[in-house]
Amino acid sequence: MKLCRFDDNRLGVVSGDDVHDVTDVLAKLPAQHYPYPMFDALIASLPDLRGEIERLARNARAIPLAACKLLSPLANPGKIVAAPVNYQKHLQEVRKDANLHHGNMINEIERAGLFLKATSSLVGQSEGVRLVHADRRNDHEVELAVVIGRRAKNVSRETALSYVAGYCIGLDITIRGPEERSFRKSPDSYTVLGPWLVTADELPDPSALDLSIDVGGEARQRSNTSDLILDVPALIAFASSFYTLNPGDVLLTGTPEGVGSIQPGDTMKATIERIGTMQVAVTAA
Amino acid sequence: MKLCRFDDNRLGVVSGDDVHDVTDVLAKLPAQHYPYPMFDALIASLPDLRGEIERLARNARAIPLAACKLLSPLANPGKIVAAPVNYQKHLQEVRKDANLHHGNMINEIERAGLFLKATSSLVGQSEGVRLVHADRRNDHEVELAVVIGRRAKNVSRETALSYVAGYCIGLDITIRGPEERSFRKSPDSYTVLGPWLVTADELPDPSALDLSIDVGGEARQRSNTSDLILDVPALIAFASSFYTLNPGDVLLTGTPEGVGSIQPGDTMKATIERIGTMQVAVTAA
Repeated sequence: MKLCRFDDNRLGVVSGDDVHDVTDVLAKLPAQHYPYPMFDALIASLPDLRGEIERLARNARAIPLAACKLLSPLANPGKIVAAPVNYQKHLQEVRKDANLHHGNMINEIERAGLFLKATSSLVGQSEGVRLVHADRRNDHEVELAVVIGRRAKNVSRETALSYVAGYCIGLDITIRGPEERSFRKSPDSYTVLGPWLVTADELPDPSALDLSIDVGGEARQRSNTSDLILDVPALIAFASSFYTLNPGDVLLTGTPEGVGSIQPGDTMKATIERIGTMQVAVTAA
Repeated sequence: MKLCRFDDNRLGVVSGDDVHDVTDVLAKLPAQHYPYPMFDALIASLPDLRGEIERLARNARAIPLAACKLLSPLANPGKIVAAPVNYQKHLQEVRKDANLHHGNMINEIERAGLFLKATSSLVGQSEGVRLVHADRRNDHEVELAVVIGRRAKNVSRETALSYVAGYCIGLDITIRGPEERSFRKSPDSYTVLGPWLVTADELPDPSALDLSIDVGGEARQRSNTSDLILDVPALIAFASSFYTLNPGDVLLTGTPEGVGSIQPGDTMKATIERIGTMQVAVTAA
């Protein structure tokens, strides 16, 4: 199932070039008094709601995707975890280029650990990326994004995929410079998720997916998730050995070689096999 | 006003050694349907609710503080931002000691930027700190914590303090090692806020507050916020030049020299002038 959020917080199921509005299912999630959950309540309840979502989708009229404003498929992620330098050729390009490493030591991922992106940086494809500090180099990074489906703490590599709710395309937009990754990569709109969430039953094996990004029609990054240094199960095991992953937490798996700059006026077109394609406009903040 | 959260999500006003239960005011916050706010709704509404909170406090019976289980005074922070190496003597101690820098370059804060801690790491004093990776060095870091009261983007140093809702004591518990700060400092329970939130009207000037921490009765860190490299207004301006700060976002202002290790069985006693004192137990996860 391909789940999207669109327009004014509507929920939809994508089928071909159409969206079927299933927003009514959200009424099954109880209204909450303060304090609110610190995880994504829809993702946590997805196994229970799935039958009702499918029933609603069958009876909903089709809305053309092209007429929908696609939001982030995740509304309430508690944290966005990301993997640095998780493709060997990207590690090599960063170590060779002072514009990328800025004098900092670039450790392999097992030594570098994972980093966080602010949840306030999250947007969907229709909202676009608004560059801040446009005097500095701002880069595209395309990544496979994993959405956690249930609470995960100290999980093994072998069971890790059973904690996944689904996948989407992630863009980890990055200001180059000497600062901590969690700072340079967290301005508003610097995390794009989309175009929709493909549930894990439709994508049981994330280990050999082509991924790519073009900017203004020019090919920039071309790789396959088979080149990940730590693959999806290893990343989940690694993250959950430090902290609890909750439903709706996002794991950005790292970007391959070919990172490059984006400018106001550019359009990025990102594709991951078996997920889809999203186009994202770049403007100045 | 000193606002605390205690027991089973109750809200209280602290007066001397007592708590006055004002939980009824939370009914003024509307029940929310999914998606939930990505900021702290109580903090956002505090100016409007303050009169009612004071009225409820006057009529509530006194509960001894000692009988209350104190939770984090913040329930729904959207992000926890923290300042690395923001006291000159701490910068010097980190640069001199390989157990602290682990071969990484330690930049001044203007070059290092700020980092994020996972909101899933947040606890209150009564919950205690549960150490993971106990084979590695785990350190206490005491800090002044600033709670943002209203949306702040590109604010100036001059107006920055008008965006503050209040202050509390923060503990930024840290696993030493080579990984990104946002990873090593984000295990569950590695961010302690407490004992309560002192609203900004009671603490108009955060620039000269004594802060300290003892472990097992031994003095470990002793400093004053006048030694901050970037002071509170400068930190708010710096953070908001990269991303939007929302109501309930937390800014941990950095720790002074004297960081040291903690072990299961230890009790930390942290004090900040004009805020209070909190005692936090350390156990193994």
